[in-house]
Amino acid sequence: MSHNSFGHLLRVTTWGESHGPAIGCVVDGCPPGIALSETDIQPFLDARRPGTSRFTTQRREPDEVRILSGTFEGRTTGTPISLMIENVDQRSKDYSDVAKAYRPGHADYAYDAKYGFRDYRGGGRSSARETAMRVAAGAVARLIVPGVTIRAWTDELGGDRIDPERFDAEVIGSNPFFCPDPEAAARWENLIDNARKAGSSLGAVVACEATGVPAGWGAPVYAKLDASLAAAMMSINAVKGVEIGDGFAAARLSGEQNADPMRPGVDGPVFLANHAGGVAGGIATGQPVTCRAAFKPTSSILTPVPTITRPDQDGKSEATDISTRGRHDPCVGIRGVPVVAAMMALVLADQFLLHRAQCGT
Amino acid sequence: MSHNSFGHLLRVTTWGESHGPAIGCVVDGCPPGIALSETDIQPFLDARRPGTSRFTTQRREPDEVRILSGTFEGRTTGTPISLMIENVDQRSKDYSDVAKAYRPGHADYAYDAKYGFRDYRGGGRSSARETAMRVAAGAVARLIVPGVTIRAWTDELGGDRIDPERFDAEVIGSNPFFCPDPEAAARWENLIDNARKAGSSLGAVVACEATGVPAGWGAPVYAKLDASLAAAMMSINAVKGVEIGDGFAAARLSGEQNADPMRPGVDGPVFLANHAGGVAGGIATGQPVTCRAAFKPTSSILTPVPTITRPDQDGKSEATDISTRGRHDPCVGIRGVPVVAAMMALVLADQFLLHRAQCGT
Amino acid sequence: MSHNSFGHLLRVTTWGESHGPAIGCVVDGCPPGIALSETDIQPFLDARRPGTSRFTTQRREPDEVRILSGTFEGRTTGTPISLMIENVDQRSKDYSDVAKAYRPGHADYAYDAKYGFRDYRGGGRSSARETAMRVAAGAVARLIVPGVTIRAWTDELGGDRIDPERFDAEVIGSNPFFCPDPEAAARWENLIDNARKAGSSLGAVVACEATGVPAGWGAPVYAKLDASLAAAMMSINAVKGVEIGDGFAAARLSGEQNADPMRPGVDGPVFLANHAGGVAGGIATGQPVTCRAAFKPTSSILTPVPTITRPDQDGKSEATDISTRGRHDPCVGIRGVPVVAAMMALVLADQFLLHRAQCGT
Amino acid sequence: MSHNSFGHLLRVTTWGESHGPAIGCVVDGCPPGIALSETDIQPFLDARRPGTSRFTTQRREPDEVRILSGTFEGRTTGTPISLMIENVDQRSKDYSDVAKAYRPGHADYAYDAKYGFRDYRGGGRSSARETAMRVAAGAVARLIVPGVTIRAWTDELGGDRIDPERFDAEVIGSNPFFCPDPEAAARWENLIDNARKAGSSLGAVVACEATGVPAGWGAPVYAKLDASLAAAMMSINAVKGVEIGDGFAAARLSGEQNADPMRPGVDGPVFLANHAGGVAGGIATGQPVTCRAAFKPTSSILTPVPTITRPDQDGKSEATDISTRGRHDPCVGIRGVPVVAAMMALVLADQFLLHRAQCGT
Repeated sequence: MSHNSFGHLLRVTTWGESHGPAIGCVVDGCPPGIALSETDIQPFLDARRPGTSRFTTQRREPDEVRILSGTFEGRTTGTPISLMIENVDQRSKDYSDVAKAYRPGHADYAYDAKYGFRDYRGGGRSSARETAMRVAAGAVARLIVPGVTIRAWTDELGGDRIDPERFDAEVIGSNPFFCPDPEAAARWENLIDNARKAGSSLGAVVACEATGVPAGWGAPVYAKLDASLAAAMMSINAVKGVEIGDGFAAARLSGEQNADPMRPGVDGPVFLANHAGGVAGGIATGQPVTCRAAFKPTSSILTPVPTITRPDQDGKSEATDISTRGRHDPCVGIRGVPVVAAMMALVLADQFLLHRAQCGT
Repeated sequence: MSHNSFGHLLRVTTWGESHGPAIGCVVDGCPPGIALSETDIQPFLDARRPGTSRFTTQRREPDEVRILSGTFEGRTTGTPISLMIENVDQRSKDYSDVAKAYRPGHADYAYDAKYGFRDYRGGGRSSARETAMRVAAGAVARLIVPGVTIRAWTDELGGDRIDPERFDAEVIGSNPFFCPDPEAAARWENLIDNARKAGSSLGAVVACEATGVPAGWGAPVYAKLDASLAAAMMSINAVKGVEIGDGFAAARLSGEQNADPMRPGVDGPVFLANHAGGVAGGIATGQPVTCRAAFKPTSSILTPVPTITRPDQDGKSEATDISTRGRHDPCVGIRGVPVVAAMMALVLADQFLLHRAQCGT
Repeated sequence: MSHNSFGHLLRVTTWGESHGPAIGCVVDGCPPGIALSETDIQPFLDARRPGTSRFTTQRREPDEVRILSGTFEGRTTGTPISLMIENVDQRSKDYSDVAKAYRPGHADYAYDAKYGFRDYRGGGRSSARETAMRVAAGAVARLIVPGVTIRAWTDELGGDRIDPERFDAEVIGSNPFFCPDPEAAARWENLIDNARKAGSSLGAVVACEATGVPAGWGAPVYAKLDASLAAAMMSINAVKGVEIGDGFAAARLSGEQNADPMRPGVDGPVFLANHAGGVAGGIATGQPVTCRAAFKPTSSILTPVPTITRPDQDGKSEATDISTRGRHDPCVGIRGVPVVAAMMALVLADQFLLHRAQCGT
Repeated sequence: MSHNSFGHLLRVTTWGESHGPAIGCVVDGCPPGIALSETDIQPFLDARRPGTSRFTTQRREPDEVRILSGTFEGRTTGTPISLMIENVDQRSKDYSDVAKAYRPGHADYAYDAKYGFRDYRGGGRSSARETAMRVAAGAVARLIVPGVTIRAWTDELGGDRIDPERFDAEVIGSNPFFCPDPEAAARWENLIDNARKAGSSLGAVVACEATGVPAGWGAPVYAKLDASLAAAMMSINAVKGVEIGDGFAAARLSGEQNADPMRPGVDGPVFLANHAGGVAGGIATGQPVTCRAAFKPTSSILTPVPTITRPDQDGKSEATDISTRGRHDPCVGIRGVPVVAAMMALVLADQFLLHRAQCGT
């Protein structure tokens, strides 16, 4: 991964700012001959799209994707696929607050420290708007590994975790939280409503599972499947933690509790548990690949937070408070669900190509 | 990161198997003119070295590093630094058990599925012995960022966490667990002893803190400092989870609890908290960079675990049990402490060079 | 370089086909704070633009570039710069000839062999139209190394070389051949006219010189400045040979003839010759960096050439002849001049960043 | 390619200086299961080895290669292959001349300008000794593409070219010049003897041909097969020019002369010529891949050349003359022949893996 590109062989480069004319990405390295049109991508963008319920930001972006290159007569040609979404709902709002002071929890100060100045309109390049292109690229990636099924959901919201016993995959798409547990979904409505009324925000943990990943994908030592997943997930805005399989819980198990015993099966081994999350030594074992990503609460809150002004010409900052008005997700983790799934797809498609290069299948 | 290389501009390539003649690495991209000799590297290897207490493996490797290239008259020349450690303590033990059946929790089956066969002696390339070269390379990396101080410790062992109130950095080096809390260290002796007697093993969580990291290091979007750290840590053997700053705990905080308020300071902003772990938008804020890595319990245990034999010529596996005799760490997380610190050093030195390239300082 | 990306730290990814809706590129890694607008880029595109004289293709593309991201208030932000040119002059011509048979000298057969099918409209991705984005990216690169001056010209056309004694830099821009020798320019008019009338085409050699390159840029062993230049030049459509300094002529000199003697100067050494083309051991010496690129004659000619049809369902090809009607450059080398200069700029800006990363200046 | 690594998927990292304890390389990404031992590599090193005739340097290095990792029971495991050669014949000669003044044509001044100082013993990292590891790595690469046959030879020496009519592949190995034309070989004996007696040196052009390369290997736009070859060849010490197919001569042909007409064949197309050198649009056409590399004359000559001393503490250089005594090749191009073949093998093996990744075969 380097700056704005991701992946070894399936290489995605994203560009664009929240308030520029458009955002886009280039997907390079896609195998040829795959049927691809905008309709393969749009549904995933629609799932991530803002403004679909009162629980997400009210910014209304149609997020209509266009394919500008890389296909011919409805199939990929093997050349770079350029995808673009025009930015539509850019309110000509007043950004003078954000221009003058740093919002804690945002990248405002860090960008300024790095680059000497920054595009402060809507977060510029640090806006989560960039993740739309990950979702678009992820839709392409899924077509490269058609045998793999990827499912992501909100596993925990504001500290309230789903009951695994009530996990129902069918429910995920039928509530605004991507919640697989109907009872948790009901509770979360209140959690979010209360947070929003209080001018506050909530964090979330998103879980993801990929089934159909053949044993053998991944590679030691620094291209490990789990290391690639960790980088992919941690590169998503607001993510502060990543787990593979049991993750931190594994550190509290004994060796025999944590073992995934094996038994002979019809088609390769049968595992009697999956604490490892489908990865051993950085290589897929054939079990479902599972991971979890922790999203911090949205940093843009109405509650004022102490901060400082941008240094003046003499390098002097003033103490002030800042509260972030505008249209913000009370919990960025929710719309992170399609993003997590997309990053899983991108990592797996890339690892598929890497594996095929070295091992031939 | 690609297969056996790590880093963008400070690029480390490691090689070698547990039971080959030697292990080594090439550190490419090091700035010229830095004083470097074996004595700058050896102390870090000694800290990781096995056989120093009854709480780690009894394999006795002197792990003496040699610099084979890249220095002249005691200074780095800017050309690749080749480091090598000869493998000494390779017992001609009987590996037929491991050759015939897969050890659950190990990479045995995954390697076989990927490559069609594997070097089963001591884990071959998947052995944690590879991490010795990370430690050696990390020692070089530290010299590239002399203003940065890196400290790692065991934060939790077998589910028993240190008391942050009793944190004493001086204590870390004076017990066999890299434990900064003397009372926890005393408890852990029993935990480990009991695990070993029971033929079991324990997991651990290792924490790491880097101070002196200037605001501005790191880069959006896919070369984020935290994403690079996540990949670096997750690439360490046995690591199953990574957190930056508050990590998963941040997902349970409200927006205002999680904010790191800022106040004007003499030399840039003063932060009133560090939930973010010193990174915002993938870029360092100038606060200490903090992370935690979860190590699963050692997979090599005396307790027998159900497994299968390697498929015979007809592709048929048999059910069997396997227990791993030999000299193993009852808790691999302990010796992971110097490795975690080394990966932090490597990531930071690489990000320093990346930042200097783009921004000039 | 990987597939459609070029450069280590200044990384350019191009996309787009000749007959798609647009072509574009993403320039990643540009330092922040550089003044940049479309007017910095457009003149270079205008120099390369087709249809400006009867000696180049009559296709009329305005080639108007738009900056879609990466700048704020007229300066680069350090984030990816997305550039796009809409394709305008796409005649709905009949491509059935090209669809059915392979044009010798073109990539038709090779693309088909690789990908199983191809976008045959105007060459698709293999069209020299892609080089427009190199020119656009090169314009950005020049701003990164403002102390460097790059000049390219046609050194030889149809086997007729300029007289170095008559070299006049002022003349380059005042004739349609980028020819620095007025007498050669006059001769070349006839050469081109005759070739076009005969339904034939001509090759050319393009020379390029960069002055102001500080000693020290470049790097051993596989990131050599001259190796990077060689790859950059050879990646341009129709280029079949690259020379640095004296190139092949150096192979015919004796050691003492080829030496570039040095004498003390006011500001570093003074070289008494520049057979080396400003590069030694892959590193700039401070002399002008010089190279030459050989362009083969345009493959699209009216003269029929024996070829085969695309295999039918039974894998059977027929013998046929093909002649390429349409609007083609009688000598692609001419419009290669701005492309060669752009690739020089991209390589040098990238090497500047690489050098600054490792050596600090 | 980055600093000391070469290749995308078959990635070779070399290290070591002329007068260090050893030189070596790491070959990463090799497919598993390939039979490999030192005897597969040594013959290629022996062909390059110095001291085998009076026409090459009298330095006597046995150049015995050791495999330190990456194989198990005689087969590659898919993990990094570490190769090492100990430096044996390091005369404790007096390097004070070279330490004090810069040898024109060498990298002495450039290294100093870049790094601030340099290992001046025998050229340090800029020594052609590094190419031994390319030859070793190339021997591994050949095993990855067993269907490809690679042949290199000296095509021209001191301006005297072989007669293609007398080309006899059998003769290449039976004279000290890798010359396929017995009459030219006889002439070259005198040329070299005279040059050496005169304290001078000669250049050479090395040609290389790879047969059995399937149509489809290679990739647009910046990973072109010919662009990769150009970088590979230009990265060899002393190379100043590279041609693919007809190279510069193609720039002097007309379009119809340069066309490679096609006719239907039993197994794909039959080409009636190969001006293109087996590459179109950066992708192999199935014809032999041909290239030529121009080697400048050896810079180390007995004839004194004007130069300057290393700047003293006040930054002042003195004018002086330098002549390079010691054991040097009168024509470095000769021993470049196995190096050129090795780079061809490395590029092709890498492109094979890249192609298999994207296209599946």
